[in-house]
Amino acid sequence: MKISAVVFLLLASLLSTSSFATKQKPAQGSDLLVQLEADFAKAVAEQGRAAFVTYFADDGVELEEGGGISTKDDIRKQPAWSEGTSLTWTPVKADMAASGDLGYTYGNYVFKSKDKEGKPVTYYGKYTSIWKKQKGGSWKVVVDMGNSSPAPR
Amino acid sequence: MKISAVVFLLLASLLSTSSFATKQKPAQGSDLLVQLEADFAKAVAEQGRAAFVTYFADDGVELEEGGGISTKDDIRKQPAWSEGTSLTWTPVKADMAASGDLGYTYGNYVFKSKDKEGKPVTYYGKYTSIWKKQKGGSWKVVVDMGNSSPAPR
Repeated sequence: MKISAVVFLLLASLLSTSSFATKQKPAQGSDLLVQLEADFAKAVAEQGRAAFVTYFADDGVELEEGGGISTKDDIRKQPAWSEGTSLTWTPVKADMAASGDLGYTYGNYVFKSKDKEGKPVTYYGKYTSIWKKQKGGSWKVVVDMGNSSPAPR
Repeated sequence: MKISAVVFLLLASLLSTSSFATKQKPAQGSDLLVQLEADFAKAVAEQGRAAFVTYFADDGVELEEGGGISTKDDIRKQPAWSEGTSLTWTPVKADMAASGDLGYTYGNYVFKSKDKEGKPVTYYGKYTSIWKKQKGGSWKVVVDMGNSSPAPR
């Protein structure tokens, strides 16, 4: 019994240590930025436009195609997306400053919505997101910009 | 003569020192980014499209409205701007990473050109430029993105 107890404790210790290491190892550099984009995209899939307010820094801006420079307050006032609207995006590149407090990703997006007649429409484009580590340690978007791309063949 | 020579040397030393300090004090942080934009804009005013090749990092990209992700090689192959084309831009905000190796500015641009009939046309838009310090210490653009804005009233 004594030996099996020791073995059990050793195994439990080993398992919890490796589990701890796996869970606690934070993504860094460009991996962290890709993870942030995935988290943001998941929130957008679940909450739509409202997720932008959560993920934007207080001084964050959205540079909308055909529009102006929208502050976080401007975004907060925008109407919720209509049923069936979705925005997904895929980073092509991510890069982080040496200090690990400022980074960006750019890539491609697909925006699906419905026109006035309720017919589904799909828009293709590119985006750039700049992320900045905030006081307190959270990461927020400081600049979000998009523009149109030709539809893929 | 001796006294005036000493005074002259003192004055000359003082002037050259203060001039040295003024000239050699390098801009830092967001000031450096605004200076880089001004240098880039001056080069564009003088050389047109060719200045983009000089100011872009080897892995720099341009995310053009209505286009794809253009590499530096893609930009190199583009035709020179026609006579009377100009691009000017004004940063609204600039921010630098704590490590001083990655930063961005965003703001507004004005692009003037001529249409097929030779009539002058002006396009208004916004831009985001991300700058990265290269090995060797020079600063280059890694991401340049633009999109349209409504014409100012």
